[in-house]
Amino acid sequence: MIAFDESAARVAVRGLRGEEHTSAEEAYARAVWSVLVEPGDGVAGAFVAEHGAAEALRRIDDSADPDVRRARARWAPRRQPGAVEAVLDAARRCGAALVVPGDAAWPTRLDDLGAHAPLALWRRGVATHAERPAVALVGARASTAYGEGVAADLAADLAAAGVAVVSGAAYGIDGACHRAALSAGGATVAFLAGGVDRPYPRGHEALLAQIAAAGTVWSETPCGAAPTKWRFLSRNRLIAAMSDAVVVVEAGWRSGSLNTAAHAATLGRPLGAVPGPVTSAASAGCHRVLREYDGVCVTSASDVLEMLGAGGSPPPAWEQARTDATTRLLDALSPRTGRSSDDVARRSGLAPDEAAILLGFAELEGRVLRDDDGAWRTAARAAAGGRTTG
Amino acid sequence: MIAFDESAARVAVRGLRGEEHTSAEEAYARAVWSVLVEPGDGVAGAFVAEHGAAEALRRIDDSADPDVRRARARWAPRRQPGAVEAVLDAARRCGAALVVPGDAAWPTRLDDLGAHAPLALWRRGVATHAERPAVALVGARASTAYGEGVAADLAADLAAAGVAVVSGAAYGIDGACHRAALSAGGATVAFLAGGVDRPYPRGHEALLAQIAAAGTVWSETPCGAAPTKWRFLSRNRLIAAMSDAVVVVEAGWRSGSLNTAAHAATLGRPLGAVPGPVTSAASAGCHRVLREYDGVCVTSASDVLEMLGAGGSPPPAWEQARTDATTRLLDALSPRTGRSSDDVARRSGLAPDEAAILLGFAELEGRVLRDDDGAWRTAARAAAGGRTTG
Repeated sequence: MIAFDESAARVAVRGLRGEEHTSAEEAYARAVWSVLVEPGDGVAGAFVAEHGAAEALRRIDDSADPDVRRARARWAPRRQPGAVEAVLDAARRCGAALVVPGDAAWPTRLDDLGAHAPLALWRRGVATHAERPAVALVGARASTAYGEGVAADLAADLAAAGVAVVSGAAYGIDGACHRAALSAGGATVAFLAGGVDRPYPRGHEALLAQIAAAGTVWSETPCGAAPTKWRFLSRNRLIAAMSDAVVVVEAGWRSGSLNTAAHAATLGRPLGAVPGPVTSAASAGCHRVLREYDGVCVTSASDVLEMLGAGGSPPPAWEQARTDATTRLLDALSPRTGRSSDDVARRSGLAPDEAAILLGFAELEGRVLRDDDGAWRTAARAAAGGRTTG
Repeated sequence: MIAFDESAARVAVRGLRGEEHTSAEEAYARAVWSVLVEPGDGVAGAFVAEHGAAEALRRIDDSADPDVRRARARWAPRRQPGAVEAVLDAARRCGAALVVPGDAAWPTRLDDLGAHAPLALWRRGVATHAERPAVALVGARASTAYGEGVAADLAADLAAAGVAVVSGAAYGIDGACHRAALSAGGATVAFLAGGVDRPYPRGHEALLAQIAAAGTVWSETPCGAAPTKWRFLSRNRLIAAMSDAVVVVEAGWRSGSLNTAAHAATLGRPLGAVPGPVTSAASAGCHRVLREYDGVCVTSASDVLEMLGAGGSPPPAWEQARTDATTRLLDALSPRTGRSSDDVARRSGLAPDEAAILLGFAELEGRVLRDDDGAWRTAARAAAGGRTTG
């Protein structure tokens, strides 16, 4: 049994909360939960959803739920005196906010994760962009100049179109996306695997400060938490859930960004990937997304905007050519040799009447010319396209 | 009314027929039809299917079918004395064979075109590869070194795997595919838009001779026919219909090979495309196939073989990582600092019992080490992968 009340909670979370709707007691209890459990703990998520965070904390030791009875063995080692207060102090020191469900700033898209939604979020920065469409642009740290260039173009164009660019602040593709979105004056959002007070990677400390100044840096792990491999994998589900579409920009065969793609597929988020040369190992993961997840082939920001719900594409233009009798007519003409209407009919396989009518239309359009003796020939412009192959 | 009998027909097609099942009269009548109509004439196809080719010829002038009455106006200009005999003579001169439905050599895959199937085929070469799976590899004449390299790799690997490589003998991608299939000692098939006695493009005269020597060169247009734009577009439906799968290797936004892709989609043939850099205009058509036709992303011959019916792909390997408690365990260990089992449990968010069991397994696998004082640390090999990001 973990005991506290509203007034004690209010003191504990002082300085960490804005104009929020959720009570201090509930917010504090969620902070405690975020210290006790690893990200994505579905038993904790279901238990908190059933009783509320504060009441669930009080019931940990007495619950008859067999899942909870098993889980509390893994939660117990983290129940240490002062652990929660140390996290709250660290958050205050770095200017982080504690954001919980019910708060105006809570990203409700994350609720799609159900029992695996984060129990609390820690935030650096103030802008939350909840009203904007959001697109995750993710990729490998081991990026190429090609991948970084495409990432920067996509991110800048999407940011300029009012889309928030969500990524993971890693070296390589992630960093290129955040930077381009910032340069375009747009909104960008980073999710970290460790605490928001521990900029990771260290070489992106300045970039993370810029993101926090213009956008938002989020983590579900408490301040002081190290960015472990498990937390990176768990963090990826938040990037996918936070976004209206997920695009893998450049990724090798085993890139962690494919894990983000898997979460997007599980969540039903539109999923795309940017292709690259099949000879480039750095694009092999993108091609897996196209093949194994039937991802959308993304070549530009407009392709991504279409993923956000613009609906179906128009019928392919090249199909129009197939029923075009004028093509056959022009095939049968020469720019040099004049031909009679009947000769044109025979060469094109058109009825003489039809050939004569089509020749008349083509003459009006300036595509064919009639000599003084009545012979037809192609105008120079039409002839240029007359003998192209399929 | 066009009159002839079996003995006259036998004389007419002498030297153009092998050990075939279809009567000389029917074969000759189909040769006449292939002279009278342009490729893909659905009215002619339906009329011939209803009455047989010879009887349909006899009924042309008397038919009450309104479609036929309209169509014969476009067939009439080609009914010229000696036209058919000139075609048959030209075929004999170039060593071509006349192949019609019912013949052992007839490619029955083409029957999927229904009324738009060719009325007759003209063939140079003897191998028909009817028993082999066939894949169309098509693309633009304006190819890059990247596209030609991928084309050659795909064609050689497919040919080596016993697949017939079907293409259009054009410059660029088509030529690279035929050449690589020949070099690999495999089967290759070319469909021409004009007569098989008119090698096109002229620069591929030698290549077409090689294809005819080792494989097959087909056309539905009679000897002497020019390769017009209409015939290229019509020819593309045969490339698609002849193949068990169609792959666009490299193609610009408006490449004619997208027309072949459209035919493949209409026929329900598996359709794929090789991606390339999104910054390369030469790959833009491939990306259209991936987007607009939901084509399969092809990166290697094995991807194409999978399209031929190997069935579903295995579940993506990266999903396995998500439920791996050992990942969390290894995250909580250091190669330098020894940690107690309880400390590891707290850091990993695992129950102490579970952590102890997993540590034991990991020790058996050589992934962790136990010091003399009972403290755990990661073995060097495991540590190398312990802090990678997602």
